[in-house]
Amino acid sequence: MNEHFRPVALEHASRLINHGPTVLVTSAAGAQRNVMAAAWSMPVEFTPPRIAVVVDKSTFTRQLIMASGVFGLCIPGAGLADLTYAVGSTSGRDGDKFSRYGIEVRPGPVLGLPVIEAGCAAWLECRLIREPHTEEAYDTCFAEVVAAAADDRIFANGHWSVRDDNEALHTLHHLGGGHFARAGSVIRAKSP
Amino acid sequence: MNEHFRPVALEHASRLINHGPTVLVTSAAGAQRNVMAAAWSMPVEFTPPRIAVVVDKSTFTRQLIMASGVFGLCIPGAGLADLTYAVGSTSGRDGDKFSRYGIEVRPGPVLGLPVIEAGCAAWLECRLIREPHTEEAYDTCFAEVVAAAADDRIFANGHWSVRDDNEALHTLHHLGGGHFARAGSVIRAKSP
Repeated sequence: MNEHFRPVALEHASRLINHGPTVLVTSAAGAQRNVMAAAWSMPVEFTPPRIAVVVDKSTFTRQLIMASGVFGLCIPGAGLADLTYAVGSTSGRDGDKFSRYGIEVRPGPVLGLPVIEAGCAAWLECRLIREPHTEEAYDTCFAEVVAAAADDRIFANGHWSVRDDNEALHTLHHLGGGHFARAGSVIRAKSP
Repeated sequence: MNEHFRPVALEHASRLINHGPTVLVTSAAGAQRNVMAAAWSMPVEFTPPRIAVVVDKSTFTRQLIMASGVFGLCIPGAGLADLTYAVGSTSGRDGDKFSRYGIEVRPGPVLGLPVIEAGCAAWLECRLIREPHTEEAYDTCFAEVVAAAADDRIFANGHWSVRDDNEALHTLHHLGGGHFARAGSVIRAKSP
């Protein structure tokens, strides 16, 4: 539990992944649970907040999601780059990754999914919207966000606040092969 | 035409949007053409290279894509933040945005779509894969990438090279309301 985490209003939930961060997908079904990294996710709707994420059909995470119909998206900060790459490079079929990497979790408030707060900027609890065709053809899973929270040192009142003094919580954007761009400096565009 | 642009092998095309940059969607049908900004896109498959992008059904871009079955994704560099916000805040139904904003284009090599090179890091030409249900329910358009190119000052040999000396080509990641995070410094994760 991280004292800096605050609930995010559902109408602002899409902003948490609007800028394309790499996420950690958490899942649980029965006595099994897992966490993997996913670079491919995006919002698809503001209200109700809906997202899409690509989870390969060969993964343990996909198996758990299909069994439970729910999953979490946790948004790692820059300080978790090594962990993000690690959980994206190993399978939960070979042993529980939370234990292996010492990842502390708490149960999400609505779905009870394991969510990660230490070192993460935010998390979302999501309920799968079954779309068998796109799941099969594109490994693309659609879902509705039913709860969200963020570390108020980097996201508060519905807005990101990316500053020099919260660098460890800046989001990671996977360029490939374990190289991540950090979403650091902010540019404010002129009003058109 | 930008002398720094080089073709990107199709097996590397997904890397161009792997890290979640905001893109400019270009489209053309008959005598009409358009450009809009889109924050919500992602790869869904490496080979063949396939992507998904959310284009609201009310937009002029969506109308042109449905008429032509093709579209372009251009990846603006940080120097185009104002332009990106501008073309994302106005409609092509109110007049040609390329002319209005002085955007220079060239025809893409495979589909002949208008692609933008000045100030952009890369572009992709995409052929829509018709998925009427997901287009309708989630405004999500799937497509196959049929050609891609990148400015070799920031993407070469299949890899991004984000450095201090190519800051104007660093990608933009929309946080909301015209605020963009710039994907600047690169973190190399330890091998797990």
